[in-house]
Amino acid sequence: MLRWLTAGESHGPALVGVLEGLPSGVSVTTDDLVAALARRRLGYGRGARMAFEQDEVTVLGGLRHGVSQGGPFALTIGNTEWPKWSTVMSADPVDPSLLKTTGRNAALTRPRPGHADLVGMQKHGFDEARPVLERASARETATRVALGAVAAKFLEQAAGVRLVSHTVSLGPVAVPDDAWAEVGLPHPDDVAALDADPLRCHHPATSARMVEEVDACHKEGDTLGGVVEVLAYGLPPGLGSHTHWDRRIDGRLAQALMGIQAIKGVEVGDGFETARRRGSAAHDEIEKGPDGVLRRRTARAGGTEGGMTTGEVLRVRAAMKPIATVPRALATVDVATGEATQAHHQRSDVCAVPASGVVAEAMVALVLADALLEKFGGDSVPETARNVRAYLDSIPEL
Amino acid sequence: MLRWLTAGESHGPALVGVLEGLPSGVSVTTDDLVAALARRRLGYGRGARMAFEQDEVTVLGGLRHGVSQGGPFALTIGNTEWPKWSTVMSADPVDPSLLKTTGRNAALTRPRPGHADLVGMQKHGFDEARPVLERASARETATRVALGAVAAKFLEQAAGVRLVSHTVSLGPVAVPDDAWAEVGLPHPDDVAALDADPLRCHHPATSARMVEEVDACHKEGDTLGGVVEVLAYGLPPGLGSHTHWDRRIDGRLAQALMGIQAIKGVEVGDGFETARRRGSAAHDEIEKGPDGVLRRRTARAGGTEGGMTTGEVLRVRAAMKPIATVPRALATVDVATGEATQAHHQRSDVCAVPASGVVAEAMVALVLADALLEKFGGDSVPETARNVRAYLDSIPEL
Amino acid sequence: MLRWLTAGESHGPALVGVLEGLPSGVSVTTDDLVAALARRRLGYGRGARMAFEQDEVTVLGGLRHGVSQGGPFALTIGNTEWPKWSTVMSADPVDPSLLKTTGRNAALTRPRPGHADLVGMQKHGFDEARPVLERASARETATRVALGAVAAKFLEQAAGVRLVSHTVSLGPVAVPDDAWAEVGLPHPDDVAALDADPLRCHHPATSARMVEEVDACHKEGDTLGGVVEVLAYGLPPGLGSHTHWDRRIDGRLAQALMGIQAIKGVEVGDGFETARRRGSAAHDEIEKGPDGVLRRRTARAGGTEGGMTTGEVLRVRAAMKPIATVPRALATVDVATGEATQAHHQRSDVCAVPASGVVAEAMVALVLADALLEKFGGDSVPETARNVRAYLDSIPEL
Amino acid sequence: MLRWLTAGESHGPALVGVLEGLPSGVSVTTDDLVAALARRRLGYGRGARMAFEQDEVTVLGGLRHGVSQGGPFALTIGNTEWPKWSTVMSADPVDPSLLKTTGRNAALTRPRPGHADLVGMQKHGFDEARPVLERASARETATRVALGAVAAKFLEQAAGVRLVSHTVSLGPVAVPDDAWAEVGLPHPDDVAALDADPLRCHHPATSARMVEEVDACHKEGDTLGGVVEVLAYGLPPGLGSHTHWDRRIDGRLAQALMGIQAIKGVEVGDGFETARRRGSAAHDEIEKGPDGVLRRRTARAGGTEGGMTTGEVLRVRAAMKPIATVPRALATVDVATGEATQAHHQRSDVCAVPASGVVAEAMVALVLADALLEKFGGDSVPETARNVRAYLDSIPEL
Repeated sequence: MLRWLTAGESHGPALVGVLEGLPSGVSVTTDDLVAALARRRLGYGRGARMAFEQDEVTVLGGLRHGVSQGGPFALTIGNTEWPKWSTVMSADPVDPSLLKTTGRNAALTRPRPGHADLVGMQKHGFDEARPVLERASARETATRVALGAVAAKFLEQAAGVRLVSHTVSLGPVAVPDDAWAEVGLPHPDDVAALDADPLRCHHPATSARMVEEVDACHKEGDTLGGVVEVLAYGLPPGLGSHTHWDRRIDGRLAQALMGIQAIKGVEVGDGFETARRRGSAAHDEIEKGPDGVLRRRTARAGGTEGGMTTGEVLRVRAAMKPIATVPRALATVDVATGEATQAHHQRSDVCAVPASGVVAEAMVALVLADALLEKFGGDSVPETARNVRAYLDSIPEL
Repeated sequence: MLRWLTAGESHGPALVGVLEGLPSGVSVTTDDLVAALARRRLGYGRGARMAFEQDEVTVLGGLRHGVSQGGPFALTIGNTEWPKWSTVMSADPVDPSLLKTTGRNAALTRPRPGHADLVGMQKHGFDEARPVLERASARETATRVALGAVAAKFLEQAAGVRLVSHTVSLGPVAVPDDAWAEVGLPHPDDVAALDADPLRCHHPATSARMVEEVDACHKEGDTLGGVVEVLAYGLPPGLGSHTHWDRRIDGRLAQALMGIQAIKGVEVGDGFETARRRGSAAHDEIEKGPDGVLRRRTARAGGTEGGMTTGEVLRVRAAMKPIATVPRALATVDVATGEATQAHHQRSDVCAVPASGVVAEAMVALVLADALLEKFGGDSVPETARNVRAYLDSIPEL
Repeated sequence: MLRWLTAGESHGPALVGVLEGLPSGVSVTTDDLVAALARRRLGYGRGARMAFEQDEVTVLGGLRHGVSQGGPFALTIGNTEWPKWSTVMSADPVDPSLLKTTGRNAALTRPRPGHADLVGMQKHGFDEARPVLERASARETATRVALGAVAAKFLEQAAGVRLVSHTVSLGPVAVPDDAWAEVGLPHPDDVAALDADPLRCHHPATSARMVEEVDACHKEGDTLGGVVEVLAYGLPPGLGSHTHWDRRIDGRLAQALMGIQAIKGVEVGDGFETARRRGSAAHDEIEKGPDGVLRRRTARAGGTEGGMTTGEVLRVRAAMKPIATVPRALATVDVATGEATQAHHQRSDVCAVPASGVVAEAMVALVLADALLEKFGGDSVPETARNVRAYLDSIPEL
Repeated sequence: MLRWLTAGESHGPALVGVLEGLPSGVSVTTDDLVAALARRRLGYGRGARMAFEQDEVTVLGGLRHGVSQGGPFALTIGNTEWPKWSTVMSADPVDPSLLKTTGRNAALTRPRPGHADLVGMQKHGFDEARPVLERASARETATRVALGAVAAKFLEQAAGVRLVSHTVSLGPVAVPDDAWAEVGLPHPDDVAALDADPLRCHHPATSARMVEEVDACHKEGDTLGGVVEVLAYGLPPGLGSHTHWDRRIDGRLAQALMGIQAIKGVEVGDGFETARRRGSAAHDEIEKGPDGVLRRRTARAGGTEGGMTTGEVLRVRAAMKPIATVPRALATVDVATGEATQAHHQRSDVCAVPASGVVAEAMVALVLADALLEKFGGDSVPETARNVRAYLDSIPEL
């Protein structure tokens, strides 16, 4: 069982992530984590913060000489803007007079539609949104990405599983159905190329149209959402289980993806499209490959059947709503006065869809690493790898 | 914390459900459970089994004189066909000669595409699919519906929360966008009318077209999927939390829905459609109602923000793939011989979409009841209700 | 991960147990469960109920032809006295006039010291103790014993682990320290002999003194507690973990044992005695056996170090308080009147210590089976066994 | 639900603790945490490390201006000795030539009896003990103490619950039974006095004898264990539950205490002594106080009945084995050579019993805070406090 907790506020001194249950023997370095976090800042249409935000990664536990030791992995991601916030966000009490003069400490009493602001205030009895947005902010996904990078290393080293994510649509601009035949699904070897694309889109012509859409939207003071897809290659059959609802891998993936800020929809394989098809054209027929291994003719199911990975490529999608902090500010009510007003406006991104693919990839890695440990156990990479191999060897050829 | 486990095989003597953590003081009777299970058999396009399948409900724990006692709730749902299966599915060893002569015991060596059969066999090292399909079968959802009915009683009695589900599309036939303006979203008071509709569809004209689609599909030996929606009315704001990914109510709902057999997609509110919109038209602006209570002008988000219920109507959708046991049987391989063949064919439904709405409703009820207890605690209905009321009273009016 | 829930009231129609996460391929039959439950009724000093109480075991899920199928295991244990209680304990509402005339339905308003009665009533807002004692009763341990028997089968079949339990003291009568040198620790092969002993004591002379103590106590209208010990043989080193507090096997065993009704103390190995020793005489020195395998010279630690099994014999103890329903009734207050009075008196056992060893054995089996799965994974007995064997083979000889 | 993870190695840069699920509104400062950690270094008989070890506490998440914000609480505890260890314990790879010349990096191939060393190496396939002891070390308890201090603040602020711990025996020296009548049980108001006592013992004469025992033991190059007790005052009745084994508060406390390094026994109330008593003298009779509130005449049960707090003082004990790193080194085998040898010897404490009381107090606080949230819910201190109060008000007086 893999457990992970994240902590830290958006403008606090640092984010913190702890990953418990990681076997020993996983090779990973601080540079790997820095590289993973840099991918999270990718994408055309990001605002100013992404440019100056640096992720200062410090590994505090679980690693020695680049190898995991069996104990919990822990890291902090320092906030380079912290000096500006150290009074407003001080953990300890500060001189109240200092706070009065600080604009950054002004009470946020105009809750933003589409954010956690209003509900969070009601839930906790807060009279302003600062304590809510500090934790609800998508900055928290940095810890997920870092922990996901560790999980991904484990998946690759113990089982040869590799991941890739990409943007399939941005607002109304989607990769056309017939383009897939042309470019094929992305493969883990395509990660560098995808990361180099402004929108992390696998189809260049569509990517160009997406850039235009971002520009148009920016000009109009509006924001965009989109859909990202994560693929996992090399999975063994049988992660997850058909025997109990909460062991189903598709359900666990769905929670992990829907649990990302701003995600409103999740699909496995062809998802909603499958619901429109007839049964004779909706499933993946089974055939014997030339090597005697059973395989599927198609990939509609996205690599799961009965709540288990099938051994085919896993494919899941997440739909992200447009950024809720819309430059053309949305109507709200000032809770201090009861007067109608416009929402606070704290950032300037047009879209974060390309980055959300990286976050989704991390969440999928965490879920799969957990499921791998559930099926194969193992306190070290060699032990898990040995158990995986023996299992794969035990599946009969025909 | 509410925990629930289900057990039992599709053709075994009974299904078993246990719901642990239910407060005392919930009023519920065996008749309520029987009624809930009858709703799960609803819908045009079901096969023969639904007609003769009776759900023999026996409550074994947790209730006394129609009121929950604080201990785990437990029930069995007897299988009226058990006498035919008592040898083949006997828990204890039987005389092997009896099994040889029983057709029902024939090894199921042709795994069905779209089912758990093949992966389940590989995962467990089985040489036939019987042990897999017995547990993977959607018959298991009967226990979920029964436990969900108990959860729904708790939600209503402790917090005034009520649910309704309906079919929004069947294969290619969807309620048209403009029809919603006409009929409005269904309300819990519409449950009886929806249950009386052949497809549990809220728009009569669309329902009629769905019937035609089922008939056409049946004639062609094919099957259908579709999309169902669950709505919850009367929720307090603040169930779930923005503070940690796995406390987010939308993620927990997504797992619960995706963890239903045959579900391949999940949406909260407008879901994938939201990803196509611009930010200025994607969120729910906030205004003050005449009663001084803050409310949303629209319902695009589906009643969640920041991973919490907003107090508006909760609205979630699940996309069901077409039934995988297609009368025009799908290609597979006989694992006993390695020869290409056609899949086993065990049932004759055209679609189970209307019933899946009832199952989805149950899963939503279980998740919400758990989240209600998480926020409000309480060992009895009066205690939880008292805590809910005091919280609602504490939210300031403006 | 192994999860288990139990349900059912002491005088309800049946107890229910569900064990989720059990691999396929475990051989177990209803007779095995009946035999396990019969052991729970053992012991000199039990009251009338044990004699007429029969455990009607029905397996409802998870087994087929005597072998587990990978899905949740479920059983019911019918209450042979149910016809007498079917009105008083009816799940559904009954005619109130029937209840008025039934002595069994009289309100239990005199909470018994040492029982859950008073606190349970306060917690749930009940005005009498019936709903509390029905679930708090030690009758519930029957389900634990049955599920523990399944776990024990898995432990033995997947890893060669076998358990035994015995009574080390009864009230003031304890097996003398020097007797252990004489008789040695009990071994799983001694189970039949222990079960045949009136007190399940491994030292015959002490057993005879225990019988006298029971007789004396019975004559004086009083009750007895005692201490039981569970041993597990054949464990691999490394179950549990030193890396996080809640993975420590000793902590998990402690919860499982302390979570048995009436247990007030738990020890691992020499426990409290160890705290009185000096360090030079408190630990188990390490040496190389003639086979090159490292081993401990002594067994003071009880087979755990650093929160992990060492591969030596596991040894844990549980201290049971005397039965709280004392024939010489204890002082209490009638909550209906506020008057001082004497407690309800519902059973007539002098002691249940021998049986508590059987319950403790079951709880230890469940914890160890869970820990075995955590380290070795496996969806079937052959898979887990293969992983255990490969691990043991990987430990270097010296 | 309260979840907490700890991370970090004994000689790593810092320990990390994350506490998830803490309501908002808890007042706590860095100074509070520093003070709590200072208490963990108390006690006569500690070695050199305690003197120079400073706990550099940095709160990274969850607090703002001295008040919790509803998100996860996170802190690091810096290791002031880190510069000496930064190469040997570097998270990232270092120049191998640097490691060769560093004595601190010498392979620890002589596993110490009584430690996790040998088993941890076998479990993970390590060829030396460094990676094991770094995480198994009791230094990790610093994080527990810090998180426990936060939990204790919540308990006090939301429910008026306060804790105290003390040493009841040290090796063979125990507070005599008749001394309790003289000094009474310690109360939270006694914490300062207890912390000022060299052994944190409530009975001065016994404390003096304990000092003599430490001195004698130190002279002989040996170590000591002992027994500590934790008391909690002000608990409401009904935390935990009789309805399911793993909800019982005594079991949860037992896991928490047994899960502390070196603890081998746990008792609730009179524990093992209770098992020696007769029933008529083992339970706490119930009477009505002058205020109409029901109370117990005695406190044998330690404040729990039926797995729930009774509202009386909670009292639990933990037995600590003597420090396993015995100056008169224990026999072991060098795993690099297979030769018999003596164990590594890394520290010089005679006993850590007084400090273990502080750790035990922290673990009890974490368990109780979790149980408080389970029963009363609440996202903020005022909300939890309101629910507690309403519950207490609902318990009828007689």
